[in-house]
This record gives sequence, structure tokens and C-alpha cells, in this order.
Amino acid sequence: MKAVKAVMDYLVNGNVTHVFGIPAGSVNAFFDELYDTPSITPVVTKHEGAASYMAAAYAKYSGSLGVCIASSGPGATNLVTGAANAMREHLPVLFLTGAVPVDTVGLNASQELHADPIYQSVTKYSQRVDRAEELLPEIHKAVEIAMTGVPGPVHISMPIDVQLESIAPPSIPSFPQRTKLLPRDELIAEAADKLADTKKGMILLGQGIRGAVKDALELAELLHWPFITTPQAKGYIPDDHPLHQGVFGFAGHEQASTLVHDSEVETILILGSSLGETATNNWNPHLTRSKYTIQVDYDATVFNRRYNVDLPLHGDLDVTISSLTTALKSGDYNPAEVAVPVREKHRNDRDEYNTQNVLHALQELLPASTRFTIDIGEFMSYVIHHMPVRSADSFDINVHFGAMGSGIGSAIGAKLADPDRPTVSITGDGCFFMHGMEILTAKEYDIPVLFIVMNNARLGMVHHGHALQYKRAHERFGQKPVAIAEMAASMGIPSVRIETLEDIDTETIAKILPADGPSLLEISLVDDNIPPMGDRVKFLSSFGK
Amino acid sequence: MKAVKAVMDYLVNGNVTHVFGIPAGSVNAFFDELYDTPSITPVVTKHEGAASYMAAAYAKYSGSLGVCIASSGPGATNLVTGAANAMREHLPVLFLTGAVPVDTVGLNASQELHADPIYQSVTKYSQRVDRAEELLPEIHKAVEIAMTGVPGPVHISMPIDVQLESIAPPSIPSFPQRTKLLPRDELIAEAADKLADTKKGMILLGQGIRGAVKDALELAELLHWPFITTPQAKGYIPDDHPLHQGVFGFAGHEQASTLVHDSEVETILILGSSLGETATNNWNPHLTRSKYTIQVDYDATVFNRRYNVDLPLHGDLDVTISSLTTALKSGDYNPAEVAVPVREKHRNDRDEYNTQNVLHALQELLPASTRFTIDIGEFMSYVIHHMPVRSADSFDINVHFGAMGSGIGSAIGAKLADPDRPTVSITGDGCFFMHGMEILTAKEYDIPVLFIVMNNARLGMVHHGHALQYKRAHERFGQKPVAIAEMAASMGIPSVRIETLEDIDTETIAKILPADGPSLLEISLVDDNIPPMGDRVKFLSSFGK
Repeated sequence: MKAVKAVMDYLVNGNVTHVFGIPAGSVNAFFDELYDTPSITPVVTKHEGAASYMAAAYAKYSGSLGVCIASSGPGATNLVTGAANAMREHLPVLFLTGAVPVDTVGLNASQELHADPIYQSVTKYSQRVDRAEELLPEIHKAVEIAMTGVPGPVHISMPIDVQLESIAPPSIPSFPQRTKLLPRDELIAEAADKLADTKKGMILLGQGIRGAVKDALELAELLHWPFITTPQAKGYIPDDHPLHQGVFGFAGHEQASTLVHDSEVETILILGSSLGETATNNWNPHLTRSKYTIQVDYDATVFNRRYNVDLPLHGDLDVTISSLTTALKSGDYNPAEVAVPVREKHRNDRDEYNTQNVLHALQELLPASTRFTIDIGEFMSYVIHHMPVRSADSFDINVHFGAMGSGIGSAIGAKLADPDRPTVSITGDGCFFMHGMEILTAKEYDIPVLFIVMNNARLGMVHHGHALQYKRAHERFGQKPVAIAEMAASMGIPSVRIETLEDIDTETIAKILPADGPSLLEISLVDDNIPPMGDRVKFLSSFGK
Repeated sequence: MKAVKAVMDYLVNGNVTHVFGIPAGSVNAFFDELYDTPSITPVVTKHEGAASYMAAAYAKYSGSLGVCIASSGPGATNLVTGAANAMREHLPVLFLTGAVPVDTVGLNASQELHADPIYQSVTKYSQRVDRAEELLPEIHKAVEIAMTGVPGPVHISMPIDVQLESIAPPSIPSFPQRTKLLPRDELIAEAADKLADTKKGMILLGQGIRGAVKDALELAELLHWPFITTPQAKGYIPDDHPLHQGVFGFAGHEQASTLVHDSEVETILILGSSLGETATNNWNPHLTRSKYTIQVDYDATVFNRRYNVDLPLHGDLDVTISSLTTALKSGDYNPAEVAVPVREKHRNDRDEYNTQNVLHALQELLPASTRFTIDIGEFMSYVIHHMPVRSADSFDINVHFGAMGSGIGSAIGAKLADPDRPTVSITGDGCFFMHGMEILTAKEYDIPVLFIVMNNARLGMVHHGHALQYKRAHERFGQKPVAIAEMAASMGIPSVRIETLEDIDTETIAKILPADGPSLLEISLVDDNIPPMGDRVKFLSSFGK
């Protein structure tokens, strides 16, 4: 059999259902195999970058491997942003790229590129495979690496001749299963004792608790400790949870900050956060100051970076947290009776036509189970600060790598992985002009996603950030307004343009809610209010002073 | 002064007039300096990838340095394709990227990325600068590297704090000037003797002769040797030159092939070609078989790769070629009187509505001085094979790295560098959906470029290539047709849709020829003829047999 056929059998075996990318001469052999592989749909995108965001979201919401594919040369380099993003997001994504035939390396064949060194620093593993018999074993090795330890992307470059070469049919290895990491028993016991002995404690929940939310809540409730989340973890837990004190960090809440500054808090339990810039309000020292600090993470490199950690617990979040709960329950633990403040309600005056009120008005009319994938822009800070969380795992937010346009591809990947969930992308005009043509991909594959485009005819985050930092903003941060709903209509996409708060009504939403394919809601709105992103600006402004 | 201000003074000093990219927090300091730098226009693009193509074309057609800039993180990775492209095209482009503050490295600041290793293999130099005093010296060093030897891209990563730090005002070094390489006199003499002794010779002109076309023609005419060009060098020399035998290689001409196979040719002079796949019809051995082979190049690594070179001349093309001419003239050289075949006329039946006839019909109505930037797709092979070259340096073709959508950015960069030249981008629907939103960039900056979109509602090159190789083509290579002219109209771009050959008339072209900004001509056409790209398919099909 052809070496590439063995790869296909392996992916089928691993229940991969979609492969995202763009065909080309150097990966034609792979695409040709897809004819005879009805269980895998090739999602041909408009830009490989978007394919990588789809694959990442697919990995995130399927709990399995994401796969994307591109040509040698520009296809491979167009995927690099997606690799760096998946690396930062700890998502297992297999990046497959074509390469020129082995014996033409260095001879300037069409689209020749040595992709493996480019991917080296933004993946967990990056290799070109020069022998056909090694193609499947290397891919299996890469997938294993992607899914174990701290998950992340891997990259295999497949020369044309290697894909096509005949090999003896190999036995297809089964897909790797994740082996959970668990800290030593003594450490669990020590941590449990410390938790039990604490009069007043708090919990910081980071993005790492996705998949361990049930365990985290069980522990929080047992301890009766208030918790705050990072911006990235907003949306995992509905706002009405009585222990929820809101978001800390970028665009976060006063109430969360109050808890961080509460000098009576003796212990902080940090679950699944690397304590980066946006999660900590630029490494605010009060987060752990005078607190005994316990941090649980599957990534041992996050301990003791900027914050001193008294008790690091290196393990998978779900099993480690549930072990703590078990240990507490097995003792004669009774939580200290400390009152937890009630969560402040989101204010909503509904008077002004501004970003905050628009988002509220929309959310009230959308199904409570809606999953929002949030793109990068001014609106992102409003989402984090102002939008209520009405159902579990309902926000996909990326304040870390923050790739413009990623929220568009994420919506498509998320919907394919979890089709029952109504899915809405909140994006901006800048993002739309970068990757918005993927709305055509959604159309071609009948993927019902609502794209809400906040159209302020400028790079709003750049504009406001710059203006706050420098007291002026370059005219070139703005654009001539483009009628995006009209554009969508010209592409055969149902669309509506909103120009006032009153435009947002049940009828409009019913009309635009997608059934068989994508639809688009353009919010034409220049919001000159200062977005709730002051801390980022304070951080940037602190240099050169 | 701020370190970044010194950089700006340096760029001003070097007569840089445009910087292409997208602003963000990590490069705000750079953008803020642009306020006070009226001689440099920031061209804010829709995707950084397109900015890199603009910068590359700007470098090519200005004969100077191209500059592009992007944020740390996704901006930096979005530029990688452009770096790899500029590397392959030997274009001096400075890639500037922001980076997180030095003392936050490794702490997950927003958009943290170590960009320098990613760029290492696709640039001549890639560095992060961690000390403010070193920023200007490092950029000067990088620019020097970019412009000397074999030109190419360089990358400097600038941490936020380094940009903003105050430094003692440095003396601004002047921009590096290229020092021309010239082979040793004995080698020139040896080559001239060999040329003089040759009864029947031929010349292969590659992309390296751009900038040395006058010299190459003077030598060819003195020798009275017929010449062929590579696909990439198509367009440098008008077709009516009596020695021109057409294009050899990808989508090339029978007449060029006949010359290559002429067993009476004793000597081949190869000027400015690395002899890659597309330039040589997949390394056709007849190119140099039984011929004494002289190769001139500024890149010493191209000698003796696949072809044995009898006399390699390592030097800049213009001075080396003119030295050969001088040496020949200084002797008592008289060319052998060998008849050179007349160039075959492009056939044009004008009956069928197909790609070939559409391109002819359009070209007849466009100014003869038009510069065409050719994007990647099925149409590219028709352009190479069928479009006449009516004026010097009139085609920008990229069959090497072949990045889809690059022809769109190239048109904008070329027009900015050489505004007097009418500029037309020939692109396809696939390319348009990847980078077509840059038409808005052209609109915002009032850049008059005509975008001709060959809309076949499929990835035509992939479709035909796959069908020829595998006798079937995946349905997913096609898309539902999109009315691209209508899309353009919705964006406020003048546009016309063509559906028959008769639609292409003087009136339509006059109406659509751009005056103050971009315009778009959609050619709605599914061409089921086999494009003239058989050799590429033969190459791909030769594996796994």
C-alpha cells in the first residue's frame, strides 16, 4: 500500500472526522486517499491560517486530535500562526505539510521549503520524514507527543515521493490515550491539610480547568471558598454560582480584585493557570502576597515563574483536584463559616447605543446554551467584563496568543466538533477582513454559525490602546466604513445590519439565527467610550518612563 | 531620544517611503513615531501576509529596501510566508516585529512569541535585540546583510521596553550601498574566449537578469545567440526581440524546447538562473548535455547543483555580463553567422470563451506598458504560455515559492514603488478569498490597480493537476460560485463581471481602468481545457511508480 494510505487508516482508526486545509501538488496524494475515506471530510478553507484555528477548536471541543494539512512552501508557512496558537493553548493538533521529493531537496523545486526548523520552536515535535516505512511510525510518535504530558501541536513534513511510495501493509497502531498525571500521595495529603487548616481561602481558576470544572466546583463548594477566574476561563462556569466573584486580570471585575486584596485571605489555591500577564493584571503582587500558595498544574514549568509557590502540585487537573476533595472528605473536615459576597449584577442601562448594551441586548435574545467564540478586538474586553455567563463552557476566549480572525475559524471548528451547541462568533471588522472569507467555507459545508461583526471601521483595540498610551492615535488605524452585511449578502449569506439598539429585537434575531448555514449580523457602531482594558495600557505605558 | 526614534531616523535617511503592516500594542511605539515622520507612510493592511508581499514588490520595483512590521505573536507568525518568499526571490526586506518586554520573557505576556528562531531558516539574519543601545546598530547590520551578497530578508524582533527606552542620540549610519561582485579577470577572459570560439551557442536568461537586461541583450546581440527565458524571467524582454525563442520550463514553448534539444549548440550561457524545477522542465538533462556550460550568478551555491557547470562565474549579473561584452569587443570578435529562427506568433482564434482568449482580448485593450502581477493558479500557466510580452519588465511571476494571493499584494507594492506604470493583478477566486481584502487597502490609500479575477469557482490548478495525475478530482476542490464583482461593488469598488468574450470591449475596459483607486474585473469562466502545465504533472506522477 501507499505510505500515505497507512496514515489515512491510522487517522480513521483514531476517529478523526475532519481534516482542515488547502490541497496542492505536494499533498495531492493525501487528498486523493480522502476519496476512499468516507469517514473523514476534508474541510477546504480559504486560508491555511483559518484551517489551523478550526483544527485547534475541533481539538478543544472534541477532546481529541485536530488535524490540518497544507502544501509545502506557502501552505506550510501559512499554518505557523496556528501552530504557535495551539502551543500556547495546549491543544493537540497534528500539522501535516507536503515537501518536495527527497532527491530534489536543495534544488529549488516548486514551493520548496524546509518547514521542520520553522515549526521547531512552536510545536512539541517537528520532523521531516524521508523514508516511507517511517511515515506512519513518525506520525504515531508525533500524535503520542501531542496528546501526552502538556498537550500541544506537532508537525510532520511529508515529501511527495514518501507519501506515494509503496510499503508493506503495516499493523495500524491504536491512537494514544492520555495517561493522567497525579502528584504523590504525601503532597495531596499536605495540601489537603493546609486547605483544612485555612480559615479564609480563595481559588483562582485558569483555562486549565476546562475538563475539570465539575471537580473544581465540587472542591470549591466543599471548602466554601470564593473563586475568581482568569479572562481565558470566563465562561466555564455560569455567573449564578454563589461562590463566583468574577474575572480577575485583563478587563476583569472590581469584586475579583477586592478578593485578591483581602488581607484576611490566608491561602490561595491556583488551579490551571500559568499566571501570565492577562491572568494576573500584569503580575499584580497582591495575588499571592501574604497568602500560602498552592498551585495545581499539568505543566511543571509554570511553578515559581514570577510568583513564589509554597506547594506546587504537578498533575492533571481533574484527578488532582478530585484527590484533594477525597482527602478532605476522608478527614473530619468542616469548612470555616465565612460569608461569601453575592456576585455583583452586570449593570445594563440599555439607553446608549454602545458595545456593552449591544452585547447585552443580543445575548438576551440568543439561546442560553449559545457558545460564543470571541475574536480579538476592542469588543473582547467588553465581552470579558460585561457579558454574563449563562451556561457552562459557553465562551471561547483567546487573550494569550490573540490572533486576529482566530475567532472566526474557532466557531467553525467548535461547531463541527459539538454540532448540537448553537455557536456564535463575535468578531470585528479588522478580524473579518483578515479571515472573514471563511464564512464561505461555512456556507460550502452547511455549517450554521452566526457571525456577529462589530464594525467600527477601525482597529478599535489599537485605536483606544494607542490613544490612552500616547494621547493621540494614527489616522491610519481607521478605515473607510465597509458595509459588511451587504458584502455578506453579495456572497449569498443571510445578513442584517444593525444601526440602533432598537434594531435588535426578537424578530431580527429569529430571522438571522442560522439554520442550514452561516449568517451574519453587522453591528455598525463607533464606540468612543474607553473600553475596560485599562490595565493592559498601564502595563504598556510603564516602559520608557 | 527613544531607541525607536533612532530607527525611524535611519529609515528616513535610507529614503524608505512606505512601511507595510498592522499596528498592535507591541509596536505602538514604532507607529507613534510615524506621526512625526511625514516622509514614511504606514500602509496598514488587512493581513500581515499581504503586507510582506507588498514590501517584497516594493523592494523589487524600487530597487531599495522593503520594510514590513507586525506585532509580537500572531503578527510575527503571519509574516513568515513573506519572509520565505523574499528569501526565495532574493529580495531585501526588513521584517520588524514587536516582542514582549525583556523582563517578562517566559512569563506568558500577551502575544508572547520567540520569533527569532522561527525566522532563522527563512531569512539571512534574525535577532531579538534586548538592549536599547543595540537596536539601531543591529538594524543597520541587518539591512547591510539584506542588501549585500545574495540579497534577502532579515528579521529584527524589538521588545516593547527596548523600543521605548531613552538612548543618547546616536549618529545615524548611512544606508548600505551594494558592492558589486566581479569574477577574476582570468575567468572573464576564459569565458570570453570560449564564447568567441563557439560556432553555435544559446543563452538561458533567468530571473537574476532583472536589472541587467540591457547588459544581457547587448551580449546576446553581439554574439547573435538565440536566447530563452525561464518562466520567472518571462516579461523582462518584449517578444519581438529577434533572438527571443520563448520560455523554457513550466508552461513554456515548443520553440524554446527545440533550441534546448538542438544538438548543434556547443555552448550554453546561463545568466541568473538557479536551474530549479520550473526553469528546467524538471531538470531536463538536455539543457546542458553535450554543451560547454558557462553559468553567471551572484549566488555561488547555484553552481553544480544538478547540472555540471564547466565555467562558473561568480559575480553580479550586470557587471559580469558587461565585462564579457567588453572582453569580446576588445578582441577581434566576429559572430558566426548562424540563422536564428523567427519567434512563433501566439495563436489566437478568438472563438471560444476560454482562459487563453480572455487573456489575449484583455491585453489587447490594456496599455502596452501595463505591468502584470500574476498570482498563483491555473491562469498562471496560460499567462506564461500565451500572453505576449509587449514592454520591458512587464510581468511579475512567482512560480517558485508560489504563495496564493501574493499577486494581489505584489500589485499594490509594485504600484507604490513605480506609480507611473499601469498595474494589473491577474488573480483567481482562490487567491482572492485568501488575500483579496487588500483591495480595501488599495481603496484606502487611493492606489489605482486593476484586479482581474479569473473566477472558475474552484482551485483550478489543483483540480486540473489532480485530475491529470489521478484521473479524478475531489469535489471539495470546487466551491459554490461567488459573484465577486458584486462583492467588490458592495465594498464600493468599481467592478464589472465578464461572462462572454464579447463582453470584453473598449468601452468596458475604459470604464474599469482605474483612475484614483482600485477596480475589479471578474471573469466568470470555467475552463475545462487542459492548462499548459503538463510537465509539472509528469513530475508529480513520476513518484510511487
